[in-house]
Amino acid sequence: MAHRFVCTDRVHFSDTDMAGIVHFSNFFRYMERVEHAFFRSLGFSIVDPADAGAERVGWPRVHASCDYMAPLHFEEEFECELLVEEVRSKVLRHLIRFWKMDRTLAAEGRITAACVRRDPVTHKMKAVEIPQRFRDKIEAAPPELLQRPDRK
Amino acid sequence: MAHRFVCTDRVHFSDTDMAGIVHFSNFFRYMERVEHAFFRSLGFSIVDPADAGAERVGWPRVHASCDYMAPLHFEEEFECELLVEEVRSKVLRHLIRFWKMDRTLAAEGRITAACVRRDPVTHKMKAVEIPQRFRDKIEAAPPELLQRPDRK
Amino acid sequence: MAHRFVCTDRVHFSDTDMAGIVHFSNFFRYMERVEHAFFRSLGFSIVDPADAGAERVGWPRVHASCDYMAPLHFEEEFECELLVEEVRSKVLRHLIRFWKMDRTLAAEGRITAACVRRDPVTHKMKAVEIPQRFRDKIEAAPPELLQRPDRK
Amino acid sequence: MAHRFVCTDRVHFSDTDMAGIVHFSNFFRYMERVEHAFFRSLGFSIVDPADAGAERVGWPRVHASCDYMAPLHFEEEFECELLVEEVRSKVLRHLIRFWKMDRTLAAEGRITAACVRRDPVTHKMKAVEIPQRFRDKIEAAPPELLQRPDRK
Repeated sequence: MAHRFVCTDRVHFSDTDMAGIVHFSNFFRYMERVEHAFFRSLGFSIVDPADAGAERVGWPRVHASCDYMAPLHFEEEFECELLVEEVRSKVLRHLIRFWKMDRTLAAEGRITAACVRRDPVTHKMKAVEIPQRFRDKIEAAPPELLQRPDRK
Repeated sequence: MAHRFVCTDRVHFSDTDMAGIVHFSNFFRYMERVEHAFFRSLGFSIVDPADAGAERVGWPRVHASCDYMAPLHFEEEFECELLVEEVRSKVLRHLIRFWKMDRTLAAEGRITAACVRRDPVTHKMKAVEIPQRFRDKIEAAPPELLQRPDRK
Repeated sequence: MAHRFVCTDRVHFSDTDMAGIVHFSNFFRYMERVEHAFFRSLGFSIVDPADAGAERVGWPRVHASCDYMAPLHFEEEFECELLVEEVRSKVLRHLIRFWKMDRTLAAEGRITAACVRRDPVTHKMKAVEIPQRFRDKIEAAPPELLQRPDRK
Repeated sequence: MAHRFVCTDRVHFSDTDMAGIVHFSNFFRYMERVEHAFFRSLGFSIVDPADAGAERVGWPRVHASCDYMAPLHFEEEFECELLVEEVRSKVLRHLIRFWKMDRTLAAEGRITAACVRRDPVTHKMKAVEIPQRFRDKIEAAPPELLQRPDRK
């Protein structure tokens, strides 16, 4: 059962803005990359393969947020730490922390994704129970990991 | 005194993702555009001109969030409605609603920007009181405008 | 018959990079917007509606290029001028010039799009003749418009 | 002396568009990443550190182009191969090939960067000779590597 995933990344030039730091919107792209890498690490893809058939689900976001503490700069390496915050019946909530290499917390974000399936008749997306194959591998992180750490 | 700003925009192809809808991170770019257009409508720029001298301030984000209700599609026109949610001594909070042309609420976001000035000695950014020239023109919207409207 | 389309746009904060100017890759997004606005001005969409049925085509790029002469800055307004460079049997070539408001040429780009249709059997994209409904409205610009103007 | 640099990358969700493939403009971001990684591999940064002093140079693009042969899809891994195409006195030209893992050529791009220095008096950017520290490490690739390979 997984509740934490860690990877490192590096700031690219096109991620920066004229203030010389990573544009605030790009942290949401970084969050998504970690979320998808977490899924891959468990043998899943956020885009279910066609052969998943009737079990095929999607994960649209219903909420995203980010608190910014310290800017990231060009070519800076940083660590992304994903923690599963909550596994509800139809919703998955992740907390993602961005750490500078000196362990300063640069930003802390949250993504809430709903589990949806396309109705075969109406073709509309409908929230559904998270399939057991995901529940078997993903669990919420222990509360002590989810508390915001004291900033450096 | 201004507390509300409205403009329309259109979804560009490069805003979409393989799900066929606007990528969730792009709503943060849309929010920023509205925020900056609001400033321009008052005769300001989010990037203070150099001749603002010692009065020169910047507006880094300390928080951003978005709730997603209905997707926007390629070439869809939508209305952006900015409401000033709060004017604190050093912080400005905006609420931005994205409306489909049929008045469905597509998304509702929030941006919190701190007013900062570069310290002439240490060169570090420091939160400062919002200058009077901004306070003379920007005020919080009345509470009844800030309540989330019933969805269509 | 149309061979030229002009519109104005403005540099957004998220278009800039840490050099304080529009990131070179964003000119390709600007080019696409002009191309699509040109299509809309003729009553078309680059994404053919589903009711176009068997006549439905797509326009993937096979080539794109840009020469950069002068940078664009935050909040700068600029003019986009699209000229149809060539209408071949299966390919459309556009030239797009980006003009500063003082008529300095900031950049000059080119896009080549192939007209494709999905094969109903193999589901593969295949280059096809540009349908007559497009040929009836789009023609190549006269050579004198296509010559690179003397820079200011 | 280096004239070739290879790395692998993976398509992220936010790189895709509603056609389900990597948006054509993102190949220019990919090219830039490879270019910067090539510089890092030689101990340089595309953004010269402040302590480079009077020797400090920048590398704005004067030209960029890309030919698209085969689309890249979500989560697809690909190889980026940079070849130095030409080292002129004030200009560096790179050729970048994007290879699918089955050795299909997905795209082939070119970037031309000018070596510039800010004039201490006028503060304007001016093209200058590429400093020796770069010439000592970067050379043009042999012609046989630069010829476009037969497509798979």
